[in-house]
Amino acid sequence: MTAGKFITLEGGEGVGKSTNLDFVVSRLRARGLEVIATREPGGTAFGEAVRGIFLHQDPLRPEAELLLLFAARVHHLREVIEPALRRGAWVVCDRFTDASYAYQGAGRGIKPGIIDFLRDWIQAGLRPDLTLLLDAPVDIGLRRAHQRSGPDRLEREDSAFFARVREGYLALARTEPDRIRVIDADRPLVLVQAAIAAQLDSLLDGCV
Amino acid sequence: MTAGKFITLEGGEGVGKSTNLDFVVSRLRARGLEVIATREPGGTAFGEAVRGIFLHQDPLRPEAELLLLFAARVHHLREVIEPALRRGAWVVCDRFTDASYAYQGAGRGIKPGIIDFLRDWIQAGLRPDLTLLLDAPVDIGLRRAHQRSGPDRLEREDSAFFARVREGYLALARTEPDRIRVIDADRPLVLVQAAIAAQLDSLLDGCV
Ligand SMILES: Nc1ncnc2c1ncn2[C@@H]1O[C@H](COP(=O)(O)OP(=O)(O)O)[C@@H](O)[C@H]1O
Ligand SMILES: Nc1ncnc2c1ncn2[C@@H]1O[C@H](COP(=O)(O)OP(=O)(O)O)[C@@H](O)[C@H]1O
Ligand SMILES: [Mg+2]
Ligand SMILES: [Mg+2]
Repeated sequence: MTAGKFITLEGGEGVGKSTNLDFVVSRLRARGLEVIATREPGGTAFGEAVRGIFLHQDPLRPEAELLLLFAARVHHLREVIEPALRRGAWVVCDRFTDASYAYQGAGRGIKPGIIDFLRDWIQAGLRPDLTLLLDAPVDIGLRRAHQRSGPDRLEREDSAFFARVREGYLALARTEPDRIRVIDADRPLVLVQAAIAAQLDSLLDGCV
Repeated sequence: MTAGKFITLEGGEGVGKSTNLDFVVSRLRARGLEVIATREPGGTAFGEAVRGIFLHQDPLRPEAELLLLFAARVHHLREVIEPALRRGAWVVCDRFTDASYAYQGAGRGIKPGIIDFLRDWIQAGLRPDLTLLLDAPVDIGLRRAHQRSGPDRLEREDSAFFARVREGYLALARTEPDRIRVIDADRPLVLVQAAIAAQLDSLLDGCV
């Protein structure tokens, strides 16, 4: 193997991205791989500063939201993700560019062509090798997220917004079915993780 | 007159933008106009948060710098500049999109096509009615700026950077000579202001 693989976890609020990130990381480490766990829009000092603005600035215009996320993404890519992949580490990331299409695109109405332009500029050809899209009905995810903590700026959106986000994610998965694997997250965690393990194993089998 | 005019002040460090902004505002107010004075990347709560990151985050990648500036710009436009122009006020702004071409483009090497794309997306057809480009040799501006305060992140750049910025501004002025008026700022303030007054008067004469 010359370079690591890039795996992203995607999905709406409370679907289980953070919970399953830990699972993915452990499973890969058990195979002896060097694994980096990270998240968007954080992952760097600059990204964490942006995250602070991103979660608490209200109102934040959709265009500004998208631009901030890509500003954080360029630091995250150049300082964390690309160097790790180059030295052969695997990178597991809690949200990435698909979230821009789902939240700022489908959710807030920014045209996908704008996001395509920014992605192609900042990422060139880099895409995740595997994206695990955790999918659950909106009310289930929100209920889980609210149990976890008080609502942040995004979690106070109405359910029509989250329905558009969910549909936006599923539409992406239909366009790139090889990369984006939809995992039914409306099940007990043990079943969700069995589905994730199967996806990881088939990626790992392709690597030996 | 149905809408106000939009005037920007541009130029490198210490050329006299802030000093002359006050002069422009007074002169327009003396004509009985409603005038808003503002600056980039500030002018809104969000913009001031971005300004904090912008001036002190080190290193800040060129792409992130450009994206942050446009994120601040969209708030500044929608919340301050466009509403003022619509109600007939004049807006005088310390730096605007030309600075992105000069600093992030000519200075840091981002391709102008990227900046064009962001400008056309965020501004649609909005352009300043008049841009006063204060031009002075780099060492003169830097000496003035350093007398004013300690250097911030940008002012610590080397003089080759500032030479590219100056040349970038002058190249813009050659492309849009009607909008961008070059003012020789390497003169006593009273002469600089006489040149500015002449430009303002010809804009005002076109409005009656
Ligand atoms: N499959 C599941 N069934 C029930 N609860 C879950 C499941 N997956 C995650 N949770 C719980 O839901 C909450 C939100 O999960 P989290 O991983 O933080 O979601 P996300 O990161 O996608 O917002 C947590 O309290 C977590 O323990
Ligand atoms: N024409 C001029 N001659 C001499 N000093 C000037 C002139 N214009 C401005 N200054 C001084 O130079 C310093 C920088 O001016 P400032 O307006 O803050 O520049 P900028 O906003 O372009 O960085 C200030 O101390 C100001 O008083
Ligand atoms: Mg999470
Ligand atoms: Mg100034």
